[in-house]
Amino acid sequence: MPEKITVVAERINGTRKRIGAALESRDAELIKKEARSQTEAGATYIDVNAGVAGTDEVAGLLWLVETVQGEVDTPLCLDSANPKALAAALPKVRGSVIVNSINGDPERIAGILPLVAEHDASVVALTMEEGRMPETVADRMKIAETLAGDCEKAGVPTSRVYFDPCVLAASTSPGQPTAVLETVREIRKTWPDTHVISGLSNISFGLPVRALLNRTYVPMMVASGADAFILDPTNASMRAMLLALGVLTGSDDFGMEYITAAREGTIG
Amino acid sequence: MPEKITVVAERINGTRKRIGAALESRDAELIKKEARSQTEAGATYIDVNAGVAGTDEVAGLLWLVETVQGEVDTPLCLDSANPKALAAALPKVRGSVIVNSINGDPERIAGILPLVAEHDASVVALTMEEGRMPETVADRMKIAETLAGDCEKAGVPTSRVYFDPCVLAASTSPGQPTAVLETVREIRKTWPDTHVISGLSNISFGLPVRALLNRTYVPMMVASGADAFILDPTNASMRAMLLALGVLTGSDDFGMEYITAAREGTIG
Repeated sequence: MPEKITVVAERINGTRKRIGAALESRDAELIKKEARSQTEAGATYIDVNAGVAGTDEVAGLLWLVETVQGEVDTPLCLDSANPKALAAALPKVRGSVIVNSINGDPERIAGILPLVAEHDASVVALTMEEGRMPETVADRMKIAETLAGDCEKAGVPTSRVYFDPCVLAASTSPGQPTAVLETVREIRKTWPDTHVISGLSNISFGLPVRALLNRTYVPMMVASGADAFILDPTNASMRAMLLALGVLTGSDDFGMEYITAAREGTIG
Repeated sequence: MPEKITVVAERINGTRKRIGAALESRDAELIKKEARSQTEAGATYIDVNAGVAGTDEVAGLLWLVETVQGEVDTPLCLDSANPKALAAALPKVRGSVIVNSINGDPERIAGILPLVAEHDASVVALTMEEGRMPETVADRMKIAETLAGDCEKAGVPTSRVYFDPCVLAASTSPGQPTAVLETVREIRKTWPDTHVISGLSNISFGLPVRALLNRTYVPMMVASGADAFILDPTNASMRAMLLALGVLTGSDDFGMEYITAAREGTIG
């Protein structure tokens, strides 16, 4: 089981209405506020996504990088499938960085992996192909193996890969949460030095009280070997669960952080 | 991963003040109310414990069995280390029953296992010895193997054993939650047809907001192969988490139970 959990904070995403508007109007204050609050809530990385239809993603991503780095020291996760945007943003990034993401699509791999290698970045590798979302463990592992091979060839070791096993909605595919946990264990067994990440909110798609399902699935993923999550750390219940998880994985020695949060009233 | 989670409801325990008083005064209404509310909250078994110091445990356990069975059809878990109390109560029990518990102590095994075998009961087997709580996976597995052998000899197959890996407080033993999860995986691998149960509340001993730690540890235990828990199902957040878990393990097909609970406002 991983000791330390990496939290990629997801809120600065141009496909969200408020962020899209802030991007278009270059409202730096709103972006900075999001960067600050997510950092205070324990973000390990801050995801930045400038993918707003009809706008210049290259300029948008550069502006987000500059704006967030002007406010906090938290490292960035560049959320883009556009090699031009990544090529422009990567040289501007300070410190460690994750590129989010490649998948089994050869064109996307060819466009993005060389940039990841050149900038010593890490990369999220989705176990899916363009237009095809695999459902079985074997199907996901097949794509993961291809991706691991491509990364190796490009000079990106698996220690810098974050495999995302791509969860599907439990409401329409009842066997999927279990299949994904099995995939996590397989990935962990196959490449002990790699990372397993999950942008897990799909799991609760179509169901009510989604946050409860999301925060119940995280500890299951961790127990199966996942060590990174793309989520909103400012959600109070999610944050409380992550603090509890710190005690249980042993990263929060003797529960000092947990006890402090309880004293401050953060966790109820 | 287990599909169906067994919930042994823990509230009718004579060592709790209110229950101890109800036992002494033979307050059947209070016991019946506890039996009903735990059943409505989804208890699979109702634990009954008449271990009040200075009172007649045999008569007390018999009275609890009669009282609970007079109110609900939920099967019972007889929580006693006293062979006389178990010998008196087991013939009175309707349907399936769990005896809680044996441990590595030879005297306890000799007194209780023959009763378990005779009444086709299931049994909780704690991976500890009298006065000694093991800390490593290997130590716990050694006791589990002895217990499995003793059960086999007595005619109790491992399919009727609920191994309890005995969690220790995370506050004083930071590595323990992880060691217990590993033990669960080992037990599941060694005896695929057995059960793994946890009376998990020790995990949060000495820390604030204990319920949050407890309900975060349950999904980790389930993902590692545990299929039964001794807990209070009437705790609203615990119950909500268990409903979410039903969706995630696939036991709650298409989330129908979860959706109903959300509509009724049970899960927030």
